[in-house]
Amino acid sequence: MSDAFQPISANDRPRFTEIASFMRLPHVPEGDPRRAQVEIGLMGVPFDLGTTNRPGARHGPRQVRDASALIRRAHRAHGMYPFDLARCADMGDALVNPADLQDSLARIAASVAALHAAGTVPLCVGGDHLITLPLLRAAKRDQPLGLIHFDSHSDTWDTYFGGWKYTHGTPFRRAIEEGLLDPKRCIQIGIRGSMYDLADNSWAEQQGMRVVYIEEYWRMGPEAVAAEARRVVGDGPTYLSFDIDAIDPAFAPGTGTPEIGGYSPAEAQRMLRGLMGVDFVAADLVEVSPPFDQTGGTAMVAANLLFEILCLLAGRVAARRAG
Amino acid sequence: MSDAFQPISANDRPRFTEIASFMRLPHVPEGDPRRAQVEIGLMGVPFDLGTTNRPGARHGPRQVRDASALIRRAHRAHGMYPFDLARCADMGDALVNPADLQDSLARIAASVAALHAAGTVPLCVGGDHLITLPLLRAAKRDQPLGLIHFDSHSDTWDTYFGGWKYTHGTPFRRAIEEGLLDPKRCIQIGIRGSMYDLADNSWAEQQGMRVVYIEEYWRMGPEAVAAEARRVVGDGPTYLSFDIDAIDPAFAPGTGTPEIGGYSPAEAQRMLRGLMGVDFVAADLVEVSPPFDQTGGTAMVAANLLFEILCLLAGRVAARRAG
Amino acid sequence: MSDAFQPISANDRPRFTEIASFMRLPHVPEGDPRRAQVEIGLMGVPFDLGTTNRPGARHGPRQVRDASALIRRAHRAHGMYPFDLARCADMGDALVNPADLQDSLARIAASVAALHAAGTVPLCVGGDHLITLPLLRAAKRDQPLGLIHFDSHSDTWDTYFGGWKYTHGTPFRRAIEEGLLDPKRCIQIGIRGSMYDLADNSWAEQQGMRVVYIEEYWRMGPEAVAAEARRVVGDGPTYLSFDIDAIDPAFAPGTGTPEIGGYSPAEAQRMLRGLMGVDFVAADLVEVSPPFDQTGGTAMVAANLLFEILCLLAGRVAARRAG
Amino acid sequence: MSDAFQPISANDRPRFTEIASFMRLPHVPEGDPRRAQVEIGLMGVPFDLGTTNRPGARHGPRQVRDASALIRRAHRAHGMYPFDLARCADMGDALVNPADLQDSLARIAASVAALHAAGTVPLCVGGDHLITLPLLRAAKRDQPLGLIHFDSHSDTWDTYFGGWKYTHGTPFRRAIEEGLLDPKRCIQIGIRGSMYDLADNSWAEQQGMRVVYIEEYWRMGPEAVAAEARRVVGDGPTYLSFDIDAIDPAFAPGTGTPEIGGYSPAEAQRMLRGLMGVDFVAADLVEVSPPFDQTGGTAMVAANLLFEILCLLAGRVAARRAG
Amino acid sequence: MSDAFQPISANDRPRFTEIASFMRLPHVPEGDPRRAQVEIGLMGVPFDLGTTNRPGARHGPRQVRDASALIRRAHRAHGMYPFDLARCADMGDALVNPADLQDSLARIAASVAALHAAGTVPLCVGGDHLITLPLLRAAKRDQPLGLIHFDSHSDTWDTYFGGWKYTHGTPFRRAIEEGLLDPKRCIQIGIRGSMYDLADNSWAEQQGMRVVYIEEYWRMGPEAVAAEARRVVGDGPTYLSFDIDAIDPAFAPGTGTPEIGGYSPAEAQRMLRGLMGVDFVAADLVEVSPPFDQTGGTAMVAANLLFEILCLLAGRVAARRAG
Amino acid sequence: MSDAFQPISANDRPRFTEIASFMRLPHVPEGDPRRAQVEIGLMGVPFDLGTTNRPGARHGPRQVRDASALIRRAHRAHGMYPFDLARCADMGDALVNPADLQDSLARIAASVAALHAAGTVPLCVGGDHLITLPLLRAAKRDQPLGLIHFDSHSDTWDTYFGGWKYTHGTPFRRAIEEGLLDPKRCIQIGIRGSMYDLADNSWAEQQGMRVVYIEEYWRMGPEAVAAEARRVVGDGPTYLSFDIDAIDPAFAPGTGTPEIGGYSPAEAQRMLRGLMGVDFVAADLVEVSPPFDQTGGTAMVAANLLFEILCLLAGRVAARRAG
Repeated sequence: MSDAFQPISANDRPRFTEIASFMRLPHVPEGDPRRAQVEIGLMGVPFDLGTTNRPGARHGPRQVRDASALIRRAHRAHGMYPFDLARCADMGDALVNPADLQDSLARIAASVAALHAAGTVPLCVGGDHLITLPLLRAAKRDQPLGLIHFDSHSDTWDTYFGGWKYTHGTPFRRAIEEGLLDPKRCIQIGIRGSMYDLADNSWAEQQGMRVVYIEEYWRMGPEAVAAEARRVVGDGPTYLSFDIDAIDPAFAPGTGTPEIGGYSPAEAQRMLRGLMGVDFVAADLVEVSPPFDQTGGTAMVAANLLFEILCLLAGRVAARRAG
Repeated sequence: MSDAFQPISANDRPRFTEIASFMRLPHVPEGDPRRAQVEIGLMGVPFDLGTTNRPGARHGPRQVRDASALIRRAHRAHGMYPFDLARCADMGDALVNPADLQDSLARIAASVAALHAAGTVPLCVGGDHLITLPLLRAAKRDQPLGLIHFDSHSDTWDTYFGGWKYTHGTPFRRAIEEGLLDPKRCIQIGIRGSMYDLADNSWAEQQGMRVVYIEEYWRMGPEAVAAEARRVVGDGPTYLSFDIDAIDPAFAPGTGTPEIGGYSPAEAQRMLRGLMGVDFVAADLVEVSPPFDQTGGTAMVAANLLFEILCLLAGRVAARRAG
Repeated sequence: MSDAFQPISANDRPRFTEIASFMRLPHVPEGDPRRAQVEIGLMGVPFDLGTTNRPGARHGPRQVRDASALIRRAHRAHGMYPFDLARCADMGDALVNPADLQDSLARIAASVAALHAAGTVPLCVGGDHLITLPLLRAAKRDQPLGLIHFDSHSDTWDTYFGGWKYTHGTPFRRAIEEGLLDPKRCIQIGIRGSMYDLADNSWAEQQGMRVVYIEEYWRMGPEAVAAEARRVVGDGPTYLSFDIDAIDPAFAPGTGTPEIGGYSPAEAQRMLRGLMGVDFVAADLVEVSPPFDQTGGTAMVAANLLFEILCLLAGRVAARRAG
Repeated sequence: MSDAFQPISANDRPRFTEIASFMRLPHVPEGDPRRAQVEIGLMGVPFDLGTTNRPGARHGPRQVRDASALIRRAHRAHGMYPFDLARCADMGDALVNPADLQDSLARIAASVAALHAAGTVPLCVGGDHLITLPLLRAAKRDQPLGLIHFDSHSDTWDTYFGGWKYTHGTPFRRAIEEGLLDPKRCIQIGIRGSMYDLADNSWAEQQGMRVVYIEEYWRMGPEAVAAEARRVVGDGPTYLSFDIDAIDPAFAPGTGTPEIGGYSPAEAQRMLRGLMGVDFVAADLVEVSPPFDQTGGTAMVAANLLFEILCLLAGRVAARRAG
Repeated sequence: MSDAFQPISANDRPRFTEIASFMRLPHVPEGDPRRAQVEIGLMGVPFDLGTTNRPGARHGPRQVRDASALIRRAHRAHGMYPFDLARCADMGDALVNPADLQDSLARIAASVAALHAAGTVPLCVGGDHLITLPLLRAAKRDQPLGLIHFDSHSDTWDTYFGGWKYTHGTPFRRAIEEGLLDPKRCIQIGIRGSMYDLADNSWAEQQGMRVVYIEEYWRMGPEAVAAEARRVVGDGPTYLSFDIDAIDPAFAPGTGTPEIGGYSPAEAQRMLRGLMGVDFVAADLVEVSPPFDQTGGTAMVAANLLFEILCLLAGRVAARRAG
Repeated sequence: MSDAFQPISANDRPRFTEIASFMRLPHVPEGDPRRAQVEIGLMGVPFDLGTTNRPGARHGPRQVRDASALIRRAHRAHGMYPFDLARCADMGDALVNPADLQDSLARIAASVAALHAAGTVPLCVGGDHLITLPLLRAAKRDQPLGLIHFDSHSDTWDTYFGGWKYTHGTPFRRAIEEGLLDPKRCIQIGIRGSMYDLADNSWAEQQGMRVVYIEEYWRMGPEAVAAEARRVVGDGPTYLSFDIDAIDPAFAPGTGTPEIGGYSPAEAQRMLRGLMGVDFVAADLVEVSPPFDQTGGTAMVAANLLFEILCLLAGRVAARRAG
């Protein structure tokens, strides 16, 4: 594997130096000829117009880039060097229009569709959870995708504020309505918190989505839940979406809609590690809101989980190449 | 149930809007004719003259009001809409005198006794833990009350600073001495931390209180401890007091006397949910100190636990009505 | 003057107690029969969809309410008790739709137009500066209004992000285009900072607006600038708009677009005090962004300047009544 | 001058090392035989029961100790080495009882009277402003003292909360009533902010106190105000009291009752330097509240102003010795 | 046991008062005649030149001193009064030179060797982890020591930045090379995080060190791991080193190289309590970095763990005296 | 002027998007063929081993990059578009070795000498003030340079900690000793604060340096001081060094050695603008320490002052090209 796509080594240049790109990877912006070689493209999606309460996730990508300087190149538990398995790069940010929600959704979908078209697996960093809708549109294939979704909220609500259909509380309903997801191959893990209505998730469950509420998670534990996720999505192409508010707010306070009682980053690591082998076609990590993350700890958690997800994608890229 | 006592809906008016009352409930101050209808009255007790180290809990009620805008109206685990079961309102704050401890205790007791007299179940938000003494005085009945007490400290010390009997380290001793509590129907859950003396809790235990130290909690787990609490208090009228420093300081740093090694908010939820059916006559949540809660996370935990407690009270109100 | 519209006295109930309304005034929400009596209505406008960079001003009204508990009822420099001169109240928040910019502008205009219709002078707290557009629409009279505008930015830019006309950088251009303001009776005070283009303000100046750049301010001093403002607006009906980013960011860091080199709160007080007697028909204070105001200091500055503005309005109400 | 009372040199041991005492001076607690030699005794007074709004000043002394490690031993503007002119030491803290206001006042007075009795000039660090009352009691001489008082509040109010006479808003009224101060030799510098009543300061002025409101300060400038202060107090024994809230809250946010529009630390330095030669018998610096001083900047300002005051006292000690 | 070495009682003097020494113990600096009596000497080592990324640990000792005012004198789980078992004192800080790494290592070793020479067991507070190298040099005995090492990093790397051998990532490799440690009696607990190389720890394991990775820790639990540690070190003289980054960063964010997925303070307490009886000859707690510990929570965790370690040392001192 | 060296426009891509480079300029790292065209090269120097007290300036370059997204392309007061006058770029960071001070000084000098050799004017962002020594070595010409130096400290001390000659308190002494600076063409502006010795600056003054203490600054004002600086440096080649601690800590708290009583950013702007036309050959801005800059305000001030300095350099580049 060429050295061209290796992260800067902290043993050569300390972690606090240089421009902050995701995991110190080379920055390969639109128009750069190296783009064609990239197998996994990390891309920021600085958008938070879908937020219904506390904004700020638009600042997430830059903060996660800064925190990700802490990541090293080897994953011990997997025994893996992901940057040796797949050519990875920081592709810059998707285009957005902070003054127009629908225009932003279109720009985001176009930015990421270009990655898919070039054979690059997108790993996107939000941004609020509404970005998953254009990211799924960009990932569209012949058949609907499966979904492994870590979150404290189901995000399958219908409308807000008198009929408004596009907020960070609705992306998965829209995606199912648009045929982007196969609800029977979807699983949500960690749903909790007070609810608008006891029937909040009934639509999702009627469609056939598997919802693992936090109480069931407590009973099953991370390894069994990961197995259940693998069972639900099966062998088909699958999308992974990780809302940072799935994590307990003591570990990840910097988010717009915190809910107490979540799992820890360690438990998230254990679940993610259990997903190696799933046929992931794209992934995102969303809802890091730096204005509410005074210590930067949330971005640091996000950067580490991003590395876990990257390893899943790198494993998949290597398997496809081998396959 | 009348709509008059429903919280403002976030789907109608976003959570960040409007004046901050507890859980976005109507504000029904002293003198308001709607007071007579209120079945559960949330009241602030902005008092911290009982604090022996770091002050600031006087600012607790306002901060918890602000954070409680995140609460929605349904509790999934109980399958309950508490605001439909009982008419709830924000009754404003108890009267206090920040320059006179004893005068404050008298004013607090009078403010809350008026709620009891009107048939309203008080759910008070402190303030430091000394407020539980006047709250118990206000709740006084023919027979002493039982107590379920979540805390890292026993708060049954005798005196401080050369004989001073009224601090946040003494309320339960005073309450037992005054006959307000039946020590044999009292349980304390989560006691830990370094101690002034190995005999710190011996007085309490000699009176017959059940003390679940954190090590015993670790062995038993939340469900068994909740069962033990139900056993200790039995069927009689019971008071619930939740000191936020019972929670580990990673989750709830904004408090005056943090002690490492506590349980998580999730574990607290599991214990509180196990108490449905106890005959609670009043409750409090104390020791949130906003000046030490830079991110607001402690108030957010407190608001969620307050919702758990509210559900217990609402269940009780509904049961009495039905009964 | 009836006691019904007096703020809660801190000598009776400490400042840290009770629900936080603007300046501890009575909360008179929509539908309250007392609304008809209110002469000056403080209203929150929790909207920040016009923000082009750092969001968060939607949280401004609640934070300013909290900080305004520090305000006392007498203004020494004016020798005035404003709450005795005019019946003041907290009217709650204007309606907004956080998912739809244009719908929000319409709701805001309607909420505030209702105040004007009832003879109440609105004093609004933002929210980002785009709210001034609907506030001016609501204040529309037979003739265009004059404007005294404190800011570091001219906010008369035409479009952003490829033609988008409604952001917090455009309200005054839109207002002049809509005939809401008479540019020859408009003055902007404190404009500074790096610019997109040296011609940024040329449109405004071509319309006849008087722009006092910060360098001219330094030469003239606050009293002379206040006199110049009185000269520009003359005797006609006038709107006052105060963007908190006019203040140097050392004093008011909690805002979306800080610019170094501003005037101090003391200087702002001196200018505002020099405007007594101007025929103000409405006013606003905007761009306080709590997520960027970690110490609450910006909200505290805002609350004090709000009191200065309130005195100007109260003086005007009293003069009209007398006149 | 013996080396025994020199601060630790940062050139020998870096500023971040060792136990934090005031200005890195030797710690000479009660009972230490070196006490008899100390000419200027820095003492903490960790008391905030006089606070009517935001508490926390009890933590002031320790925080100022920490920040004062930045102070070096020479004062260039005075051309002075104060630690060579007078033997200085950190005398520890006055005794307090956080559960009893009156008992605390008695303990504080006793702790500081012991310094006076030993011929040590006290330089005390609060704590809230009520501590000045016992400090003046401890400083009592045959004749009432003069006073130079930097503050944003007059602190000559009569009562709070229904007749309570002892708060941080009343110490100077009590001190005049007790004959501790000669009001005709008292000056207050920087009074500002909204007021409970336009007559708030009339009692003080009727007694003959000289009140320099902030507007007069703006007109006169620091040097003229210092001259006025020297004129008012004349040659008699004088007390200096510096409330950190005299300083604008941008520079000193960590205090309980901030008021916008104050002077800067530089202006305070210029005033203090103009007071060299006044016959100071004791001094204090109060109202630093660390829980509201997230960056430690307020304590840093306080430490530097403390050094300015120390130089005034050292100059006086040297003059008396010479005289 | 003499009262001379008892901490100040919070029941006599509140926790927020007086100069901050470790656990409010007497300060016994170099040259103090009481030094000869001290059995356990707490000493700060304010050094962070070994840091490869985020500095600040030089400020650790002072911050831990401040936080340790929360510690009381009895340890309930051990049923022990450690200050009655051994004469403890705050010995001040080791000498350092912030401009010269090697000179600092020599000064630190000399400062601590003096404690060993006087028969005092050192309990040092860093500072970055490189300090353990001079602390081991100071502790050198006839035979190499055993080691119980809590950390998220193995710190047995060879070189950084092109051959540099002395950083906080290398102390244990240097110590083994120097014959200070017997690798077969060394155990590391909690190693995790992304790695420079999958062979990062292979050198350590080849030497015979026992490495308990976090995944093995999850499987075994704290009590079994403590037993394993006792087995590894056996009866011989042993050193305890606790890197605060062993703790999950939600509980201890204030450190230079956080790694998600660590154990909690409660789990650390359970492990430490399981080590009573090991023949500890010295111990340290390192890597608290106050500039990254905005709330002070990390120092608070550190102070409590320091108390756990102190009890282990006190038990050992008492056993030796008895033995 | 080619578009290739224009910053990203915020009107095209919002300020919160994309990788953070200085002023959103293109990143032109070592080896990039565009380097040869760059006329002004912004370069980070992430080094703080010269710090004697609070570290953290190593994190300065990245934080200033992030804050500099706020800069727009036009400077109104100069009527200048600097990016049209000179091709500017972010050259990445100078090489450093965080474990070896002298090696770092050599690497920094080499990195920056390469810019000079390519005809690029370096504008460096520290890092602590010791970096100015290698930066001056890199800038060495036939004749010693003049110096305009904004600071609160003279930084001409000889040694620290027992003879150590290289700290951030000594760079200008070393530079004069090495013949890099002509002391008679050097001016220091804003020196203040307590001193180690009244003779601290006497060496500098004996060499002929012009020292404008803060008191003289107060008397002269910024425009006269700028004129004096132009007089001192005359027409010869000159270096500009701006230590952010020259600014008052209310405006710029995030620095290692704050001193109260400094000038404001506005005053600094007025001085810098008065230096247009000086023959600057290089410049730096140092001592921004992000761990002590919780709100990011210091980096924001630094970014704006950096833009002022950039305009001076751009004017010079344009003049040379024209000349």
